[in-house]
Amino acid sequence: MIIPRSHPRYLSLKTREQLVKGNRSGLVVPEGLIAHGRGEAFDYILGEKTGRSAKSAITAAAALLLTARRPVISVNGNTAALVPRELVELARAVGGDVEVNLFHRGRDREMRIAKTLMRSGASRILGVGKEASGRIPGLESMRRKVDPSGITKADVVLVPLEDGDRATALRRMGKKVIAVDLNPLSRTARAANVTIVDNVTRALPLLNREVRRLKRHNRSRLDGIVSGFNNEKNLVTAVKEITSYLDKWNGV
Amino acid sequence: MIIPRSHPRYLSLKTREQLVKGNRSGLVVPEGLIAHGRGEAFDYILGEKTGRSAKSAITAAAALLLTARRPVISVNGNTAALVPRELVELARAVGGDVEVNLFHRGRDREMRIAKTLMRSGASRILGVGKEASGRIPGLESMRRKVDPSGITKADVVLVPLEDGDRATALRRMGKKVIAVDLNPLSRTARAANVTIVDNVTRALPLLNREVRRLKRHNRSRLDGIVSGFNNEKNLVTAVKEITSYLDKWNGV
Repeated sequence: MIIPRSHPRYLSLKTREQLVKGNRSGLVVPEGLIAHGRGEAFDYILGEKTGRSAKSAITAAAALLLTARRPVISVNGNTAALVPRELVELARAVGGDVEVNLFHRGRDREMRIAKTLMRSGASRILGVGKEASGRIPGLESMRRKVDPSGITKADVVLVPLEDGDRATALRRMGKKVIAVDLNPLSRTARAANVTIVDNVTRALPLLNREVRRLKRHNRSRLDGIVSGFNNEKNLVTAVKEITSYLDKWNGV
Repeated sequence: MIIPRSHPRYLSLKTREQLVKGNRSGLVVPEGLIAHGRGEAFDYILGEKTGRSAKSAITAAAALLLTARRPVISVNGNTAALVPRELVELARAVGGDVEVNLFHRGRDREMRIAKTLMRSGASRILGVGKEASGRIPGLESMRRKVDPSGITKADVVLVPLEDGDRATALRRMGKKVIAVDLNPLSRTARAANVTIVDNVTRALPLLNREVRRLKRHNRSRLDGIVSGFNNEKNLVTAVKEITSYLDKWNGV
């Protein structure tokens, strides 16, 4: 289907198409399509724009990544289909690695995602095949597999579009978790240290810009940004952004 | 994956599994999975229960179907995967027909959906193959194909999980449209005469029960229910149900 650029929801529909293509090419699993739909709905009631709460979280996330000893950017099928370049750029900018970390693992899919990241400029990709020999304690099956030189050792992990159990398990391992999740009520959103309630296609470019801007600042200033950020409070703001959008709609 | 019955979101996860299975068996297209995800998100912020507004809409829908001259129940991939028995039961109870009506048509998929409806007790299924020789004016491509002895002639059409353009086009044809849509802001929700803002897996059984209950009433009483229903107002109530759920979450 050809979507006219003038369509009021052009970007959302183009993104949807990217996901469906990703599904056909084996990057995205059916469950990933459903998850994307959930995101679409939350984005819709956020007015499909990056709100004030998301901007604060992006600044905190940039500072946290820049002050990390070993930051790792976790990549799944949906993010590989949507923002592969931005993820690779981010990892490079913060001196970290990208790691393939899937809920539904499969050798074929891992390889496809790794290839996509390669084509997007990654020179080193963790978490593929036998490299994922580490384990997240307290999780069963494929979801727990991680790379011993990646997430296992990381102090800060960015998990865009994560599931709640894994986000919680990473916190239990003592890691700082940055999530990108359009649902401010989700367990992932609440488990993370910094939750960016925004569409990953808008948030990642903004996060990269913020990393470039904050790179000039010294350590103590960055630490100040991190310690001044309160995720719980920020999520309350995000929920308020939704309710005021809905109230406006309702003429309240 | 085995989902324990004790999981707080057991039903939602089982329904998701049903859709993924439907996708594997060719009933559900990738776009249908994304649409289901959007529904999941809206259901989530409705507290995953049938609210007051949905109950009013279900009563109005039952009365409208019972007073229809030629009611048709439109069936797509997602509803065939989720509530085939309930759709067939409803058509029988109101003396109407089921018609396969797809956004993404394909001979194979039509047949699969028809088979599912057969197995669910339907004896006559409209809209399959050459039978769909009618057209909805103002729509392009496959979306406009309808059955001349079904939707073309119908006075009332139930379109669970419809797209906005088609709902609007059906209204332009002079039909009364009943929609089941978890997004109270959608164009479908606003275009329909009666919009049930509820999960189709909860709404259809309730609608069938309501049809059985109202069957005893006389025509003027049923007409009174229909004319007393204001869809616009009811959608405002549905949006309020969402904002009060979110406010409660936020401790407001």
